[in-house]
Amino acid sequence: MSQDGASVSGEFELIHRYFQQSALTAAAPESLPLLGIGDDAALLHIDPGQHLVISTDSQVSGVHFPLTFQPADIAYRGLAAAVSDLAAMGAAPLGFTLALTLPDTAADWLAGFASGLAQCAQDHRINLIGGDTTRGPLNLGFSVLGQVPDGQALRRSGAQPGDLLCVGGSLGDGGAGLQLALQQPLPDGLSQVQGDYLHQRFWRPRAQLDLGIALRGRATAALDISDGLLADAAHIAAASGVAVHIEQSSLPASEALQAWPENVRNQWMLRAGDDYRLLFSLPAAMLAALRAEQPDIQVIGKVQAGSGVWLDSGQGLQAVSGSAGYQHFSPSSAGAADE
Amino acid sequence: MSQDGASVSGEFELIHRYFQQSALTAAAPESLPLLGIGDDAALLHIDPGQHLVISTDSQVSGVHFPLTFQPADIAYRGLAAAVSDLAAMGAAPLGFTLALTLPDTAADWLAGFASGLAQCAQDHRINLIGGDTTRGPLNLGFSVLGQVPDGQALRRSGAQPGDLLCVGGSLGDGGAGLQLALQQPLPDGLSQVQGDYLHQRFWRPRAQLDLGIALRGRATAALDISDGLLADAAHIAAASGVAVHIEQSSLPASEALQAWPENVRNQWMLRAGDDYRLLFSLPAAMLAALRAEQPDIQVIGKVQAGSGVWLDSGQGLQAVSGSAGYQHFSPSSAGAADE
Repeated sequence: MSQDGASVSGEFELIHRYFQQSALTAAAPESLPLLGIGDDAALLHIDPGQHLVISTDSQVSGVHFPLTFQPADIAYRGLAAAVSDLAAMGAAPLGFTLALTLPDTAADWLAGFASGLAQCAQDHRINLIGGDTTRGPLNLGFSVLGQVPDGQALRRSGAQPGDLLCVGGSLGDGGAGLQLALQQPLPDGLSQVQGDYLHQRFWRPRAQLDLGIALRGRATAALDISDGLLADAAHIAAASGVAVHIEQSSLPASEALQAWPENVRNQWMLRAGDDYRLLFSLPAAMLAALRAEQPDIQVIGKVQAGSGVWLDSGQGLQAVSGSAGYQHFSPSSAGAADE
Repeated sequence: MSQDGASVSGEFELIHRYFQQSALTAAAPESLPLLGIGDDAALLHIDPGQHLVISTDSQVSGVHFPLTFQPADIAYRGLAAAVSDLAAMGAAPLGFTLALTLPDTAADWLAGFASGLAQCAQDHRINLIGGDTTRGPLNLGFSVLGQVPDGQALRRSGAQPGDLLCVGGSLGDGGAGLQLALQQPLPDGLSQVQGDYLHQRFWRPRAQLDLGIALRGRATAALDISDGLLADAAHIAAASGVAVHIEQSSLPASEALQAWPENVRNQWMLRAGDDYRLLFSLPAAMLAALRAEQPDIQVIGKVQAGSGVWLDSGQGLQAVSGSAGYQHFSPSSAGAADE
């Protein structure tokens, strides 16, 4: 196992080369860096009247499952999760850096990783602008950069009593997709097409960048659902100083989710992480115009004066513990929790 | 050991709280983010006429020594190494994010880590603007952000034949400091004061930000010495399409380094990494004005037509293999190599 900087650096160059081959022609040329990999840092131009948005996200595969998952899937999901934070701010993507810590891996693992990374970058119109590679337990550190017009960033803190609470699409697919990823027993009613859909939703999530941009000047608060609906709704409630009411019967489930019993579905819709749908508050007067652009959005509740998250599951409103964090993978697998 | 996102996120909040207590009042207020930790991403303003500079750097402590080194030192050194890339671009610091992967650690470890981080941030006038914490083998992922006026970034590619080759101060202290860090036998002649100096140079390196800014419009190429003088000189030679000649007798050694035999000193000055001095090429006409501002700079050679790195060790010029990467710590310690 080689330890020297030159060789490890060479692996990053390899990833970049794969990446360039597969994605550079498709990437948005206006987001190409002025100076990229190979110098001490990357240089980027921020348009006048725009603020820079930056988010950092790490994904750690514990010692229990570093190489059993497909490297292309690991790369795609890691980058998409990071880009989802740009969507949650209403930002347009500019570029990303990757600090990749790798055990001694085979060239075909790297090739798979680079191809998944390139696919995700292409799907989200974002370019790799820098990074480095270090030897060690598998760890993906993404920093994603975007820009948003001054004063138009979506924050968590502006929800107002009277606003509608909305999501950008079906909920709970992350929980069901996790069952597939962990090779848990699946319900008999699940078709191959539905299984493929859930696999995609888990491993190839799409950050809702277009929705985030459509929410500029409309949504009063927004974030992406990564910890689960209840936990993330609690973040909006706390940051905005309001109560958030959720109507369980309004939660949108995908067709695939229907294969599971209702109580399982509900738990996933309420608590499963990794959905990467945007959750946002919206003045009711904005709904029609937004729906004309973004037909998949669903109203699932409303913002009220007060505090905390309240759930109406058919027997009236009940306060819920919104802080119940989502557990990624299983508690026995080291290093799986992330924000 | 808790695995849930809420608890791990709480650790990051803890670090941020320590950080705020110790450094926020001292940090440069103009570089405070518009929106920091607690939302999906941080928002930053880039001044008109400036480009954003971003660099990502990870530091991995292998399983052999994660907690034996002082957490404050680990934090300081990790951030300083990352900030050094801003210095190498001539950038002024704006902020940094930290993706921290942590094993289950004690509160006093975190407190020490946060205090070293805050000290380093204060010394370099840079603010923590975001990040996250994940459970797993210790891994520090820094992304540092800065700004530089359009067209004035220091690159590796502009060295011209006839330029002087200069460094920002003594060389080789990183190699000697590593001996102390690894508790290797030390020479008898080393005084306590000198030992303390080398300890500081290794664990508390200062990124040469002021020098980088002074080099704007003057240096034709620059980088920071992290892989060793010869290896980094080779980067300038290759990127600029020139030959770099180095005169061994001109290499500046600190007083502390005199305690080791000449052959050891020379090897460290030529090959040891982690010096974080700027290495740059400079038109000779610029030297006097620059020295008036930055008295510590030393001329160690010159740029010539040709290619590669050439060393004059007293018996004429010899071509050297500049690509000999520096090995951080020992080859038997997992995960120690970084760029």
